Amino acid sequence: MSRVTIAPEEDRLTAQIAFAVEIDKLKRVIRRNLLMDGSRRENDAEHSWYVGMLALVFAEHAPPGTDIQRVIAMLLVHDLVEIDAGDTFIYDPVAVAAQAQAERTAAERIFALLPGDQAASMRELWEEFEARETPEARFAKALDRFAPILANHNTEGGTWPLFRVTASQVKEKVRLIEEGSPSLGSYAMELVELSVARGHLSE
Amino acid sequence: MSRVTIAPEEDRLTAQIAFAVEIDKLKRVIRRNLLMDGSRRENDAEHSWYVGMLALVFAEHAPPGTDIQRVIAMLLVHDLVEIDAGDTFIYDPVAVAAQAQAERTAAERIFALLPGDQAASMRELWEEFEARETPEARFAKALDRFAPILANHNTEGGTWPLFRVTASQVKEKVRLIEEGSPSLGSYAMELVELSVARGHLSE
Ligand SMILES: [Ca+2]
Repeated sequence: MSRVTIAPEEDRLTAQIAFAVEIDKLKRVIRRNLLMDGSRRENDAEHSWYVGMLALVFAEHAPPGTDIQRVIAMLLVHDLVEIDAGDTFIYDPVAVAAQAQAERTAAERIFALLPGDQAASMRELWEEFEARETPEARFAKALDRFAPILANHNTEGGTWPLFRVTASQVKEKVRLIEEGSPSLGSYAMELVELSVARGHLSE
Repeated sequence: MSRVTIAPEEDRLTAQIAFAVEIDKLKRVIRRNLLMDGSRRENDAEHSWYVGMLALVFAEHAPPGTDIQRVIAMLLVHDLVEIDAGDTFIYDPVAVAAQAQAERTAAERIFALLPGDQAASMRELWEEFEARETPEARFAKALDRFAPILANHNTEGGTWPLFRVTASQVKEKVRLIEEGSPSLGSYAMELVELSVARGHLSE
């Protein structure tokens, strides 16, 4: 059957299904940090669920008026580009710089699987997250940075000693948390200092 | 320091953090079905992310007026009780019956880690999902049932032949999809019939 004979609604559904099949791959993108029990490294899909849950749980720590539903949608899609571009270790500045172009290329391919209107709005969510110019994006990014600090703090430093990350490097990331949520930022700072005091993170 | 001297806000944050640490365990609850590449079984956390994404992608297949943001929140929390109760194989009626009480006990413990108001509203989301009386809950359940059918269809039957599941059993689950979304229900029925035709699912 030629493509032009397909009804428009059916064509939309076909595109949505292709996207749904594609994004299953996010479950196979492995991050640096460990689960809270230290048993294995985390994947991007479960991480995306986790930060979505953090948005629900810590909603009151966002600036008043923040649209939490948009924060959640942003967090669900924020790592999709890593299906092609892979995860970047945030403490490796060379990798971080090279990553930007790879992620943009990935966004071109992956979001375009969706019907045009949905491709545009989902890409917009991702661009907004990356730009960190709205309270929603800053809060989403804060949660994205908060999660690995909480995990490392709960696993005797977790990946910090493994990758020779220092307290001053982590504190730079805490600044991003403060910008999205002052109260979570100061709590994260306490966790970092506690980890240093316990010898799980070097100065 | 005695607990009564802690400021109320600090007490709330402590409870929220305890909940955030607890729910990390959902990443270690293993489901029956496989990833779309067949490489391993899926866990509840990545499944919860996936169905949240499906809610964004297939929003237009929900009945008009369905609150998709509520559907997403419901899907993020829908499996949390499995941290204690474990995953149940939906084609095992004895296990399904025993599961209801175990999940209720789990809900008592897990949601209660949160501050009272949040415990109540999150438990409400879960109860609503389970009751399937609102369009939001019926659509959420439809996506929860749609995901493994899509995965099995894409992995030559996946766990269907492995657990000797028949087409008539799968079609009963498709009825739950139809109740939440007629268009996704009929698409799921097509997938089931295609799987039968290809010999990946027995009649
Ligand atoms: Ca389940």
